[in-house]
Amino acid sequence: MEKRPLILICNDDGYDARGIDHLTRIAATMGDVVVVAPDSAQSGKSSALTVNAPLMLTSHPDKDGAKVYSVNGTPVDCVKIAIHAVLDRKPDLLLSGINHGSNAAINNIYSGTMGAAMEGCILGIPSIGYSLLSHSPEADFTPLTPFIREITSKVLAGGLPEGVCLNVNFPARCTPMGIKVVRGAKGHWSEEYQDFATPHGTPFFWLTGKFHNEEPDNPETDEYWLGRGYGTVVPIRPDQTANDKINVITDLLIN
Amino acid sequence: MEKRPLILICNDDGYDARGIDHLTRIAATMGDVVVVAPDSAQSGKSSALTVNAPLMLTSHPDKDGAKVYSVNGTPVDCVKIAIHAVLDRKPDLLLSGINHGSNAAINNIYSGTMGAAMEGCILGIPSIGYSLLSHSPEADFTPLTPFIREITSKVLAGGLPEGVCLNVNFPARCTPMGIKVVRGAKGHWSEEYQDFATPHGTPFFWLTGKFHNEEPDNPETDEYWLGRGYGTVVPIRPDQTANDKINVITDLLIN
Repeated sequence: MEKRPLILICNDDGYDARGIDHLTRIAATMGDVVVVAPDSAQSGKSSALTVNAPLMLTSHPDKDGAKVYSVNGTPVDCVKIAIHAVLDRKPDLLLSGINHGSNAAINNIYSGTMGAAMEGCILGIPSIGYSLLSHSPEADFTPLTPFIREITSKVLAGGLPEGVCLNVNFPARCTPMGIKVVRGAKGHWSEEYQDFATPHGTPFFWLTGKFHNEEPDNPETDEYWLGRGYGTVVPIRPDQTANDKINVITDLLIN
Repeated sequence: MEKRPLILICNDDGYDARGIDHLTRIAATMGDVVVVAPDSAQSGKSSALTVNAPLMLTSHPDKDGAKVYSVNGTPVDCVKIAIHAVLDRKPDLLLSGINHGSNAAINNIYSGTMGAAMEGCILGIPSIGYSLLSHSPEADFTPLTPFIREITSKVLAGGLPEGVCLNVNFPARCTPMGIKVVRGAKGHWSEEYQDFATPHGTPFFWLTGKFHNEEPDNPETDEYWLGRGYGTVVPIRPDQTANDKINVITDLLIN
C-alpha cells in the first residue's frame, strides 16, 4: 500500500482562522495533515523570523483528523519549528492559507501566508499559498474547494520546479471562472497611512492605503484576471537575485 | 547651483547603531541626509509591516548634519513613514545599513536591512543595502568607506534599472580586496534551534543554526567571493514572480 502523503499546513491569520480550517478539511481527504500555525494574527509579517525571543509550541485538539499546533511566532517560525520539533520526516507538501485577503501583485512580498510558502520552498518542500480576496468575516470559501483540490493534487503528483512555489489567489463573492497561470501585476500603494493625534496632541499613523495597478489592461497579470472572476496562479521564486541584471550592474560599478 | 541629492537612510539594527552612524557620515559628504530608522533592533524582520498597531515618529538630535528620526516599527514601516510624514519630496537615493551581520545568499529574504532597500525600490527610489559580515560590537567599518563611497556615488550618478536594488556585503576583519557583482549563492540553514526547557519543564526553542552553502566552489556566487576577502554586490528584484516558470506551471496545472 502506498504511503499517504504528509501535508504541513500553515497560515498567517492564526491556527483557528476559518480559512485554515477550510484548507485543512480539503487536505485531510488527500493525506495526513499536520497544522502548525501562529497563535495570533500575523498578517503582513513577510518572511520575518523571531531572532531574540523564545518560541513555544502548543498542542490543540485534532481537527478533521489533523494534528493541530500553534507557535507564538511568525509564519516562517511555524514552518521552521514544524520541521525542527513536530514532524518526523520532511513533508511531501506545504499548504499555507487560505488567507483572508489578497496576496496578488507586489503584496506577495509583505504576505505572511507567502512567507510560510516561500520558507517551505527554501527547505525543498513543494509549497502553495492560497488566498481569497475578501476580509469579510462571512467570506465563503466553499466555491474554492474544487480548484484547491485540483491544484493541490496536481502539485502532489507532479511536484514543482526547484526553487519555485505557487501564489494562488481567488476572487471574492463568486465561483472562479477558471484558473490562469500568470505573473504578478506591477503596482504600488499610495496614501498609506491615516493620520491621528493622541489626546495629548502627539501624532500617530495607522496603515491603510490604496493599491494602484500600473498595468490594468494587461492579460499577462494576476490582477487582470482576478478582476474578471478568475483564480490566478503566480510562480514565485524566493531567491530574489536579478540574474539578468548582473551585467548591467557590473558595467555601472566596475567597468 | 545644482541641488544636493536627498538621501534617506534606514537600517534594521536601530537608529543608534554604529553601522548606521558610519553610513550617515559617508552619505553626509554626498548629499542632504535624513535618517528614519527603527527605535529598536529589528533583525530578521524581512519586509514585515505593522498592520494593526499605531506607528509613532520620534525626532532625535542631528548627527553629522543629518536629521535623525526613529519609528516604533519595522524597517519597511520606517521607509513608508519617511515618505508619508518626514520628507517633502521623493529621495534621490535610499541607503540601508550598514548591517551588523551577513545578508548574503538566501538571507536577503529574511533581512530587515534589505526589506528597507526593497521597499525603496518598490517606491521607485534607487536603493542599496550595505552589510558587514560581523556581529562583533567592536566591528571596524572604516575599511568599507571608500567602497561604499564609490558604489553610492555611481548609483547616484547612473541610477539603477527599474525594479532592481542592490544587496552589498563586505567581509569581516579586512579591507576588501575589491568588488564583485554576482548572484546569491544557493544554500539553506540547518540545526536551526537550540532546545531549552522552562523551570517547569515546558520546552522552548531559540533560533540559531548553521548556513550550508550548496555551491562553495562557484565563482558566480556571493559566498565564494566573501570567503576570499571581496565585497559582493547582488542585484535584487523585489518582484518575486518566476517569469521563466509560467509555461511549465501552465503545463502542470492547465494543459
